[in-house]
Amino acid sequence: MRHTISVLVENKFGVLARIAGLFSSRGFNIDSLTVGETEEPAVSRMTIVVKGDDHILEQVMKQLNKLIDVIKVSDLTKKDHVERELVLIKVNANTDKRPEIMEIVGIFRARIIDVNTEIMTVEVTGAETKIDALIELLRPYGIRELIRTGKVAVVRGSK
Amino acid sequence: MRHTISVLVENKFGVLARIAGLFSSRGFNIDSLTVGETEEPAVSRMTIVVKGDDHILEQVMKQLNKLIDVIKVSDLTKKDHVERELVLIKVNANTDKRPEIMEIVGIFRARIIDVNTEIMTVEVTGAETKIDALIELLRPYGIRELIRTGKVAVVRGSK
Repeated sequence: MRHTISVLVENKFGVLARIAGLFSSRGFNIDSLTVGETEEPAVSRMTIVVKGDDHILEQVMKQLNKLIDVIKVSDLTKKDHVERELVLIKVNANTDKRPEIMEIVGIFRARIIDVNTEIMTVEVTGAETKIDALIELLRPYGIRELIRTGKVAVVRGSK
Repeated sequence: MRHTISVLVENKFGVLARIAGLFSSRGFNIDSLTVGETEEPAVSRMTIVVKGDDHILEQVMKQLNKLIDVIKVSDLTKKDHVERELVLIKVNANTDKRPEIMEIVGIFRARIIDVNTEIMTVEVTGAETKIDALIELLRPYGIRELIRTGKVAVVRGSK
């Protein structure tokens, strides 16, 4: 099963490498990973999406909890949460195709962030299914580059 | 100086840990890091924002290029590029404060993705300066949680 794991860590050298290493040494492939600052500059949050055996994942989470630089580990998959991802899509768009692409972009509430005579760069945020649907619609025009941030997630309601 | 490094890698076990380890062993702290799939499922793109000595960074990039699972390394800081980040902000918002917060959200073209009687969760994308400005405006209401994807970047124009 696929899990979205949130890890609060002290923002120090080597923490990221150690945590990524823990997952890979247990045979988990990381589908996506993001690390960014939180409301406290000394603390970073990692959001890791992994697929693999549930029992082994529980062990990995226990091991993570033992690392001194790890503040909190939670499996958001088990909680009511909102997931979001940011994706940049560079798509072929000559003058003929531009109106069609702009229509698709409008329907998905995506935004055009760069354009030249041949190419448009589209920014979209949302849950995975929405993003995948947009990518499928843009694919026939020719996608030059696709850049995904990986998922972030937040638990609904109060902390 | 701060650099935004893009690394295309084979989507394999352990690659992420090895690359993160390379930066931390050379004394670089990673400000943000994202990993996600590209247009080819077997290939992932890492976007890494690091601060540190320029000469050592050049050495690290050469070392990265030698790793067999690394396809391409580029320092986007040197190229004309667009940077974007997705941030989720959970902010205190009781009935009294809600209209003020919604006004701020509107000005920044941010979006409300969750709401209850006490809290709103706001989603915003953009360059760092815009995001930082929004955070400063929301801070007085009380930020409960702040979740950043870390930066992604795309070179302007054709590949």
